[in-house]
Amino acid sequence: MPRFTEFETYDVRFPTSLDLDGSDAMNTDPDYSAAYLILRTDAGDGLEGHGFAFTIGRGNDVQTAAIEALREHVVGLDVDATLSDLGGFWKSLVHDSQLRWLGPEKGVMHMAIGAVVNAVWDLAAKRAGVPLWKLLSDLTPEQIVDLVDFRYLTDALTPDEALDILRKAKAGRAEREALLRERGYPAYTTTPGWLGYDDAKLVRLCHEAVAEGFTQIKLKVGADLDDDIRRMRLAREAVGPDVRIAVDANQRWDVADAIRWVEALAPYGVWWVEEPTSPDDILGHAAIARAIAPIRVATGEHVQNRVVFKQLLQAGSLSVLQLDSARVAGVNENVAILLLAAKFGVPVCPHAGGVGLCELVQHLSMFDYVAVSGAVDDRVIEYVDHLHEHFLDPVVIRDGHYVTPVRPGFGAEMDAETLTDFRFPGGKIWTDLTEGKK
Amino acid sequence: MPRFTEFETYDVRFPTSLDLDGSDAMNTDPDYSAAYLILRTDAGDGLEGHGFAFTIGRGNDVQTAAIEALREHVVGLDVDATLSDLGGFWKSLVHDSQLRWLGPEKGVMHMAIGAVVNAVWDLAAKRAGVPLWKLLSDLTPEQIVDLVDFRYLTDALTPDEALDILRKAKAGRAEREALLRERGYPAYTTTPGWLGYDDAKLVRLCHEAVAEGFTQIKLKVGADLDDDIRRMRLAREAVGPDVRIAVDANQRWDVADAIRWVEALAPYGVWWVEEPTSPDDILGHAAIARAIAPIRVATGEHVQNRVVFKQLLQAGSLSVLQLDSARVAGVNENVAILLLAAKFGVPVCPHAGGVGLCELVQHLSMFDYVAVSGAVDDRVIEYVDHLHEHFLDPVVIRDGHYVTPVRPGFGAEMDAETLTDFRFPGGKIWTDLTEGKK
Repeated sequence: MPRFTEFETYDVRFPTSLDLDGSDAMNTDPDYSAAYLILRTDAGDGLEGHGFAFTIGRGNDVQTAAIEALREHVVGLDVDATLSDLGGFWKSLVHDSQLRWLGPEKGVMHMAIGAVVNAVWDLAAKRAGVPLWKLLSDLTPEQIVDLVDFRYLTDALTPDEALDILRKAKAGRAEREALLRERGYPAYTTTPGWLGYDDAKLVRLCHEAVAEGFTQIKLKVGADLDDDIRRMRLAREAVGPDVRIAVDANQRWDVADAIRWVEALAPYGVWWVEEPTSPDDILGHAAIARAIAPIRVATGEHVQNRVVFKQLLQAGSLSVLQLDSARVAGVNENVAILLLAAKFGVPVCPHAGGVGLCELVQHLSMFDYVAVSGAVDDRVIEYVDHLHEHFLDPVVIRDGHYVTPVRPGFGAEMDAETLTDFRFPGGKIWTDLTEGKK
Repeated sequence: MPRFTEFETYDVRFPTSLDLDGSDAMNTDPDYSAAYLILRTDAGDGLEGHGFAFTIGRGNDVQTAAIEALREHVVGLDVDATLSDLGGFWKSLVHDSQLRWLGPEKGVMHMAIGAVVNAVWDLAAKRAGVPLWKLLSDLTPEQIVDLVDFRYLTDALTPDEALDILRKAKAGRAEREALLRERGYPAYTTTPGWLGYDDAKLVRLCHEAVAEGFTQIKLKVGADLDDDIRRMRLAREAVGPDVRIAVDANQRWDVADAIRWVEALAPYGVWWVEEPTSPDDILGHAAIARAIAPIRVATGEHVQNRVVFKQLLQAGSLSVLQLDSARVAGVNENVAILLLAAKFGVPVCPHAGGVGLCELVQHLSMFDYVAVSGAVDDRVIEYVDHLHEHFLDPVVIRDGHYVTPVRPGFGAEMDAETLTDFRFPGGKIWTDLTEGKK
């Protein structure tokens, strides 16, 4: 009876602020980071579960400490029993009667649960010998519903309604899986649009995006309106009239600012406006959505849990739902969010980028296509060309699509060398930088 | 030019789970805890700033680590410059461009900011030689508005509207202060109603509460409806028809459950129902409020920040706003919340209990009475008779009222001996318990 025996955490940080990669109106100098977890068992198969929470630098130590606080909830558990009741495992973490005071279900502690849950799913997929999207897609509707905690959701989605959605999607699973393996899943790129890039780099990267087959790009906006109008004009000229341009304000505005700003950019063709205001402001997003229609509101990368997503859908606050693989409490909660989106008929276009978020989230969208919504219309996964080289199974983009992964697991596994060299503050990269500063 | 020189944190826990004090439908076995901070300066006056985040046990180490992550934001700062711009200091913590990823403005990291901000306010009041409520009450309307970050609030409350509220309340400040010093501030008690107490203890404590002059008590509910109906009936019989009975579900229900449960208890006279569902569920609270009116909905102890309070007010989700001194980012954010409540005409009845929450929050209600809402109608501060003996300036209750504190500071300061003995896991209390278990 194999048990979980080791629970090893790493504070891993990449000095991305040196190049202004990832710079936007709120995140001016991020050092992309991972509070990283490796789970080992005594099964003797050599398989490990890898997972992480993503942060942007300072505080990654706090995030790592929060994952450590879950050690006792995992080490010693029976592996087979845990993997055969992942819905129950999720609840054992989220509903710990003392830890929930630290949220409940939000922020550092909730992201820590996400890292643990995702690591267990990574192990589950490796043991099954399939990529995560395939493992999920082969579950029965009943098994999928068992993964979800419906607490606080039943006024919008009941277990029976979720079963109906999944049963309807059973027809055509095999055809969609074949299409997915053949074509991959549509992507859009944020690479051209970071706020710290100058105009020449913006235009060059826009041309490259079109040449690489992307049909949607995204620009960061929100620091200065005149700059944004100029950059939007340049981007539109560079990509032409048919490529979609989304803009992303990274929570910079109050409600009235958002409406004014989007109206000023609208003449250049805005496909969606992302994070116009606080991710907590359900009613504010709804007010913005009403004012700027038919331009879409998109949000989700900072939406803390399924209860807030439920309300964003109930209130008509968004037309594009951007779930994140490492913000909420892992795969199980994202399955709930996919089911909510399907119930409300809203397309899911996941947030990615950072470090490893592309590697993870592709599995969720692919599962959604095969087994939940059954659709890819107006659905695209964000793609950012950063830090993929640190992963054992990095994402591959071809003709503006994510190539469907086939390697077993959830894609979270970083190179061992990266974990050593980028460990903060003692890893080689950081000691070299500190030396350089002296 | 004095500077902040020391930033000392303590993981302090009280083994309250041994007596089932504080037990409710969601928090079955809390060990009341504080992630505690002492700030020292080189001013030579011997004054310290004390603050803390409250948790209920596991995870208090994570909370302490989060406070530690703010050390660099404080140590080395000019004390006078910091105290003369506490609005700016607040923003420097909340808008740290990397740390905000861990929230933003929620959970562990936000509570850590609350502990730091409150410690600085404690120092400010001690240096001014007055209790915090008096320090705040003597500020001009302009100075009060400068404490508040209006980001994400302006669709509900602008700085000008806040100024209007405060200027109107300037008339009568002196009279209200005199009344406050004479009469104190009304309290209600939760002591009788913990879910872990048997019927005999419930009835005895109800009688005691009435004898002590309380005009409102609160019962924990939500685990079992038949039990709750029996306990509600016993409590009503014990306190008589004129004492208000609030019930508190501690987030146990979905929307439909809440409505059904409250309807079953309504014949015994329910003054308010507290935390009927997820603290994140603004729309759910609004649906419950519409269904159970005129019974009031109360919430707030787990409401993560001013943006969520704004929406609870906008949506009509609550009729009683229960701010908490140690959940949001300290005094400044609670000033914003008091102003929002005043704008919407909703009474504030703070959450307290735990450890030290009564000591802190009384200052906020008293400031509200003197300088913001100017009213005490239907306003009561929660009182729970736990752990006050650990504080230098414990709250005093007389005739169902908080006696107005006169000692300089914010009331957060624990005895030095407590900080040593209850430190986790190495303090005497905990090593004795561990020995006892062997």
